[in-house]
Amino acid sequence: MSIVEQAVGEAVDPSLVDLVKAELRRLVGKEDGPLAVEAMDALFPTGKLLRPVLCLESAAAVGGDVHSMVPFAAGLQCVHVASLVHDDIIDRDPVRRGKPSTAEQFGINEALLVGDGLVMIGASAMLDARDSGMPMDRMERALRVAFDTGREMCRAAFQEAMIRGDLSCGIPAVLEVVHGKTAALFGAACQAGAVLADAPGNQVACLREYGEQLGVAFQLRDDLLPYTSDEHTAGKTAISDIANRQPNLPVLLAYDAAGPADRQQLEAIFRGYTDVHTAHAQTREILVRTGAIDDVIERARTSAERAQAALAELPPSASRDRLTALAATAVDRDR
Amino acid sequence: MSIVEQAVGEAVDPSLVDLVKAELRRLVGKEDGPLAVEAMDALFPTGKLLRPVLCLESAAAVGGDVHSMVPFAAGLQCVHVASLVHDDIIDRDPVRRGKPSTAEQFGINEALLVGDGLVMIGASAMLDARDSGMPMDRMERALRVAFDTGREMCRAAFQEAMIRGDLSCGIPAVLEVVHGKTAALFGAACQAGAVLADAPGNQVACLREYGEQLGVAFQLRDDLLPYTSDEHTAGKTAISDIANRQPNLPVLLAYDAAGPADRQQLEAIFRGYTDVHTAHAQTREILVRTGAIDDVIERARTSAERAQAALAELPPSASRDRLTALAATAVDRDR
Repeated sequence: MSIVEQAVGEAVDPSLVDLVKAELRRLVGKEDGPLAVEAMDALFPTGKLLRPVLCLESAAAVGGDVHSMVPFAAGLQCVHVASLVHDDIIDRDPVRRGKPSTAEQFGINEALLVGDGLVMIGASAMLDARDSGMPMDRMERALRVAFDTGREMCRAAFQEAMIRGDLSCGIPAVLEVVHGKTAALFGAACQAGAVLADAPGNQVACLREYGEQLGVAFQLRDDLLPYTSDEHTAGKTAISDIANRQPNLPVLLAYDAAGPADRQQLEAIFRGYTDVHTAHAQTREILVRTGAIDDVIERARTSAERAQAALAELPPSASRDRLTALAATAVDRDR
Repeated sequence: MSIVEQAVGEAVDPSLVDLVKAELRRLVGKEDGPLAVEAMDALFPTGKLLRPVLCLESAAAVGGDVHSMVPFAAGLQCVHVASLVHDDIIDRDPVRRGKPSTAEQFGINEALLVGDGLVMIGASAMLDARDSGMPMDRMERALRVAFDTGREMCRAAFQEAMIRGDLSCGIPAVLEVVHGKTAALFGAACQAGAVLADAPGNQVACLREYGEQLGVAFQLRDDLLPYTSDEHTAGKTAISDIANRQPNLPVLLAYDAAGPADRQQLEAIFRGYTDVHTAHAQTREILVRTGAIDDVIERARTSAERAQAALAELPPSASRDRLTALAATAVDRDR
C-alpha cells in the first residue's frame, strides 16, 4: 500500500467500508451460477468504495442513521462497477484494479451481461433500503437522483466515444466527460445520502456540491496517473487513454500551450501514427514541457478546496472531518 | 401486414399503443445527442408493444386508471428494447425488426451504451408514474417486480450463453431460458399493472400467471419462426439460432425423438461442421420428420389456453376480452 493510499484510507471510516463489503456479499449471494461468480469477481477486491462511503458519510454528517442506508450505498457501488465493466469492453482494457478486467477474463459477451446484471442487482438493492424502514418519499427522491445520474453517465460515455481521436474537441468537451464520468456519481452519492437522511435543502445542496468538486479533483488526478506513476501503482493499464487516442484535460492543455513541433507530434500520436509505448513516452514529455501536469494538479487542488469549502455550512462532526480529509488526499493521491 | 399480425393488432387497443408511443417519444426527448438519436432508432418502429400493452390492459382489467401508469409501461418497453440491443451484440445479429440492428448500424460500443442508456431512461420513466399521483407503496412493489425481473432476464441470458453449442443441455435448461427471456417480463408487465391498480392479491396472481403463460406461448412460437416462415416475415435473421448453435426447445425435442442418422446430423451441425444455410435446411427437415414442430405448436397452444384460463377469475371487461383474444393469436402468429 502506498503512503498516499494509506492517507485515503485514514480519511475513510473502516467500519463503513466493512458494512458496505458485507452488504455487497449479501446482494450477490442472492444470485447463483456464473452471474454470481463473475459479479463477485468484478466487485472484489473492492477498491476504496468511495461512492458508497461518500453516501454514508454524507448521511451521517447531517445526522442520518447510516445503517438503514447501507443497501442503497451498496447499490450505488454495483452501478459504478457495472459502468467500469462496460467501459473496459469499450476501451478494450485488459487490466482493472491490478487484475484482468471482466472482459479480459470472461470475454465481451459475459462482461456485457455482468454489467447488466450488476445494474439490476444495484437497483434492487436501493429498494432494499425500504426493509430498514426508510420512508418511501425519501427513497423516491434518492432513486430519482440515482437514475438521473445513470443517464448522465451514459451521455458522458457517448461523449467520450464521440471525441475519441479528436484533439480539437475543446476543453469544455473533456470537462463534460469528467463531470459525467465521475463528478456526477460522486455528487449523487453525497446528495442521496443527505436526502435519505432527510437533511434540509441547503445541506443537500452543499453535499452535492462537495461530491461533484471532489469527483472532479479525483478524475483530474486519475487522468494524470499514467504520466505521474508507474503502471503497477495505478493498477490499470497506464497507456489506455493513449492507446484509445482519448483526449483528456492534460493532453488538451498541453496541446493549447505547446509550440509547433510538440503540436505536430501530438497530432501524429492522435492520428495513430506512433506506436503506443513511444506515444505514451512522448506525450509524457510534452505534458511536462508545457507545464500541463502542474496546471492539472492546480485545477484538481482548486476543486478539492471548493469541496472542502462546501462543507462549511454543515455542523461539526467526525463525518465532516473525514470528508474534509478525503478532499485533501484527492490532490496528493497516487492511485 | 400478415393476416396473423392483423389478428394480434385486433386484440390490442390502438389507443393504448398510441399512448405508449407518445410516452416513449417524450422520454427520449429528454435526452439529446447520439444517445437520443440511437435510442429512438432502437425504439421505433416499435413492434407490437406487447409488454407495455399487457401492463396497461392488466391494470384496466382490474379497474385501474391506465393514464397514470403509461410512464411505467413505457419504462418496461425501454428495458425490453435495451435487452434486445444487448442480445444483438451477443448474437452478432445484423437484423432486428426488419432493419439493421443497433450493433450493426452504430457498432458494438455504441450499442452497448444505447442499451445502458435505455435501462436508465426506463428506470426514470417508471418513477415518473409518481407525477400522476401514483401512491408510493404501489410504485415500490411494481419497481421491485421490474428489477427482480431484470435480474431474471440477465440470469437467462447467461444460461443461454452457457448452453450454446450443447445439444445435451436438456429440456429443463432451454425452458428456463424461455422463462427468463420472455415469460418473466410478460408476467412482470401484467403483475405490475395489477399492482399499480391496487388489485387484490388473487387478481395480481392470476394476471401474473396469464402473462407468464402467454410469454411461454409467444417464445415457443418465436423459436419455431425460422422453420415455419421466411426471413422477411420474421423480420430478423432466420438462421440466428443455428448460426449461434443455440439449442432451443424445437431442436431438443427433435434430438430426443430422432433416429441415429438425424441425431448424428444434428450433432455435426452443433459442432459447427456444417455451413449455416445447409445446417438450417437440414434442421428444418429433421424438425418436420420428428414431429417436433407439431409438438412445440401443441405446447404453445397449451400455454395459451392456460393463459386464458387464468383470466377466469377476473370480472368481465373489454380489457379481459382483449387479453383473451391476444392469447388466441399467440398460437397462430406468423411474426
